[in-house]
Amino acid sequence: MHPVLINGEWTPSQATEGFQAVNPATREKLPGLFPVSPLSEVTNAIEAAARAFEQVAGWPGTRFAEFLERYAVEIENIADLLVTTAHQETALPVSPRLKEGELPRTTSQLRQAAAAARDESWRQVTIDTAAGIRSAFGSLGPIVVFGPNNFPFAFNSISGGDFAAAVAAGNPVIAKGHPAHPETTRLLAQAAQQAAQATGMPAGFVQLIYHTPPEGGALLVTHPEVGASGYTGGRAAGLLLKEAADRAGKPFYAELSSINPVFLLPQGLSERFDAIVTEFVTSALMGTGQFCTNPGLVFVPAGELGERFISAVADKFNTAPVGTLLNEGTAIHLRAGIVALQRAGATVVTGNQPADGSRFCHANTLLRASTAEFLAEPMALQTEAFGNAALIIPVDTPADYDSMIRQLEGSLTGTIYSSLTGGDDALYDQIEPLLRRRVGRLLNDRMPTGVAVSPAMNHGGPFPSTGHPGFTAVGIPASLHRFAALRCWDNVRLDRLPAVLRDRNAEQRPWRQVNGQWTRDDVQTS
Amino acid sequence: MHPVLINGEWTPSQATEGFQAVNPATREKLPGLFPVSPLSEVTNAIEAAARAFEQVAGWPGTRFAEFLERYAVEIENIADLLVTTAHQETALPVSPRLKEGELPRTTSQLRQAAAAARDESWRQVTIDTAAGIRSAFGSLGPIVVFGPNNFPFAFNSISGGDFAAAVAAGNPVIAKGHPAHPETTRLLAQAAQQAAQATGMPAGFVQLIYHTPPEGGALLVTHPEVGASGYTGGRAAGLLLKEAADRAGKPFYAELSSINPVFLLPQGLSERFDAIVTEFVTSALMGTGQFCTNPGLVFVPAGELGERFISAVADKFNTAPVGTLLNEGTAIHLRAGIVALQRAGATVVTGNQPADGSRFCHANTLLRASTAEFLAEPMALQTEAFGNAALIIPVDTPADYDSMIRQLEGSLTGTIYSSLTGGDDALYDQIEPLLRRRVGRLLNDRMPTGVAVSPAMNHGGPFPSTGHPGFTAVGIPASLHRFAALRCWDNVRLDRLPAVLRDRNAEQRPWRQVNGQWTRDDVQTS
Repeated sequence: MHPVLINGEWTPSQATEGFQAVNPATREKLPGLFPVSPLSEVTNAIEAAARAFEQVAGWPGTRFAEFLERYAVEIENIADLLVTTAHQETALPVSPRLKEGELPRTTSQLRQAAAAARDESWRQVTIDTAAGIRSAFGSLGPIVVFGPNNFPFAFNSISGGDFAAAVAAGNPVIAKGHPAHPETTRLLAQAAQQAAQATGMPAGFVQLIYHTPPEGGALLVTHPEVGASGYTGGRAAGLLLKEAADRAGKPFYAELSSINPVFLLPQGLSERFDAIVTEFVTSALMGTGQFCTNPGLVFVPAGELGERFISAVADKFNTAPVGTLLNEGTAIHLRAGIVALQRAGATVVTGNQPADGSRFCHANTLLRASTAEFLAEPMALQTEAFGNAALIIPVDTPADYDSMIRQLEGSLTGTIYSSLTGGDDALYDQIEPLLRRRVGRLLNDRMPTGVAVSPAMNHGGPFPSTGHPGFTAVGIPASLHRFAALRCWDNVRLDRLPAVLRDRNAEQRPWRQVNGQWTRDDVQTS
Repeated sequence: MHPVLINGEWTPSQATEGFQAVNPATREKLPGLFPVSPLSEVTNAIEAAARAFEQVAGWPGTRFAEFLERYAVEIENIADLLVTTAHQETALPVSPRLKEGELPRTTSQLRQAAAAARDESWRQVTIDTAAGIRSAFGSLGPIVVFGPNNFPFAFNSISGGDFAAAVAAGNPVIAKGHPAHPETTRLLAQAAQQAAQATGMPAGFVQLIYHTPPEGGALLVTHPEVGASGYTGGRAAGLLLKEAADRAGKPFYAELSSINPVFLLPQGLSERFDAIVTEFVTSALMGTGQFCTNPGLVFVPAGELGERFISAVADKFNTAPVGTLLNEGTAIHLRAGIVALQRAGATVVTGNQPADGSRFCHANTLLRASTAEFLAEPMALQTEAFGNAALIIPVDTPADYDSMIRQLEGSLTGTIYSSLTGGDDALYDQIEPLLRRRVGRLLNDRMPTGVAVSPAMNHGGPFPSTGHPGFTAVGIPASLHRFAALRCWDNVRLDRLPAVLRDRNAEQRPWRQVNGQWTRDDVQTS
């Protein structure tokens, strides 16, 4: 049984139960037995994190930056091994997905987070010299990160966006790995531990638990010493954890589910028919459809144009290779999602059959439902079929767009393709305000699966896509604010203020709001 | 029965039950029967607010600013009537509290919120020209505001800080008034309605419900059309509403309870003994102790100095006038809080008896408990006794500060008085990091009851003082973020962007973060 990383040491687990990963491309168990940590072990991790938090409180951002930058190098040092291992555990393609895509994205995120930590502008220091009050965001406490199955590096509990944001904001992290790729997570944790030791981080700053029973999860998100949690994963498990965290008054940032509606307006679809078919199919089947921003629900004009689109997509779904799904659970969920859509009135256009019994997969599946069917069962027809499946709705009349959008749950993204020469402008203007408030990111003429790590990105949205519409999980420095507390100093003597709040702007010269003006300058004492 | 303000009209209520306010200074019922609105009426208000929200979506901030500024004038036009009425309903002194204090504070908040709405810097526009992504905070949806009993103007559901912030962020408000001061709230609502009409706000932008059963409250905070809620009030009712809102995935900003620990370090207390006694007593009894930032728990050095402080405070508590409490419920709660403290080991130094049967009041009450007693029952000895009561703990040894602070729940404020000549510095450095993370606002050498409306203010803190440690209820523009959604525009055509996101910075020239730099300039297209 593999040890767990607790309090700065790889420690023999107290677990009585273990699990093995499964290669989804062969259905064979992979070597390595990983522990299901009991509550006592979870408690040890929380207590160690609390001690680490006290030790690092007040450290300048450069200390966290040094760790993050060293960690990025440690990851690059074992890049080939990481890629091979993640491929075995997830069946995601080595190249370009894991090697040229996700791994560099991960190290880039760590370095961007390091830059934000070093700069400290993210703290949004606000100084009111007349009132003698100064405020800033600062570290919150140990952060628990629950990683998802679909990004073994870039959203991994111990290397992904939440991890990077939590550390950059000055917090220890307790990573709760996803049980589908434990060996990948173990390798990352080793690299993190080496970086932590090399850069003088305290024991307990970075810890790893591979798996724990539901009570262990509840303990993690509710413990008084924990600051907040980040969760990316399934809706049912996420809602249970959220309820526990809410009751304890602990912030719980959850990315739960999103169907990412796409609207293909008539003139635009006519003008660029072939390109849009290709863009949609590529986006829908990319990563076997296992993206949180996968376009799962597409609205096309009813009639000949919409029918032609459905046929063209069906042809491509038929002939495209059938990707391997991440694990057996994903395959089961996908089939269950399709069944739920069928029960709610959708019919299968193509796919929905076993494709290859030697691996976890399901034929690329296209479904359709009419405007009337959607309006009769709007909630059930928004069931997320996570994977290589999509539902197309031909829209009968322009007024139906409004009725249907009003029924949409919150999504991470909403996309509108429209004519480049103005032919859809009236319809765009009609639907955009309704769609805008239901999605975190609005796109034009581009499929939603690409999520740039930009300061302007919003990878967030109204419930249930996330638990709070004011935060983003991707995009630095904005993502740091989830793991930060707002604090103010009122009449506190100047020599007792944290460096970033003093009159002289500190070495890194962060942007600060001084008496209403954003500036990198010192406070002018008159 | 008074009508309710729904959908732009004073509408006869469907209520079958009514209530009257009571003059706390005489225990006499005041004229005017106010409705307890049934669910159907609550639903009407929500639906009207949703329509109003669609109408104002996309309006420039100036439109909301015009309403807020006009409203401030309308309030000033009836200032005398408001002050007289609020005094009758709350027994808060006319002068200076209501007339020179709270009323000008309220109109100032409305005007500061107007300035923020007009300027739009609060939206924190972020532009990444290379990625083609732009983001901003924007309006969230109808906001429900539950006002508390203790600030009939400055935190009133229809005129206070939450109201001003919600409107400045572009949201309609459904005010749920506090039943202790309905006539004050009615007058404010009339002024708000006049301002709304004069400035062309849609029907349903500002609405008022005086009271509703618990199911009505739950409906308000969970309805799909509602964006978020702000709640200031008792902990039990607040936690019930919070649980309902959390389950529905709706942000619920709650200010629940706060004991605001104060540490009087030995040298500082010696140096300025008389001044500190006076400052503490003034702060503790101000407004009959009915402030969320009232200093309810005071740590002094054990021994002669601490005993002398306790005696001096007891003397002043004895001789100070006994203020009238806001209503019968407050009086009952105060006595219940004192009983809970006694059960947990505290003993009464002075007070804790009926003072005057003709009004709602209770003698100024000072309690004490030892270090050992506090450490034995730390949670129970943090029971909030809202009103003119305080608990003093003599601290046995320097190490006991740590043990006790580690047991403190989250508070809005934490205060340390220390020597001006360095004699307490070691102790300050020891306790400050522990206290800092448990409070939203840290003070030196000043009592916490003054809450300046400053951009740097943080009137927030860890649970249970509030429900989320990242937000403030006072301080503009920061308080607007509670009622805002983060949204981004990805590859959206430039002419379709909201004005504030376009290359040319709009008329008001808000601060924007363009490619990492804060600026009021246009985007430079190269």
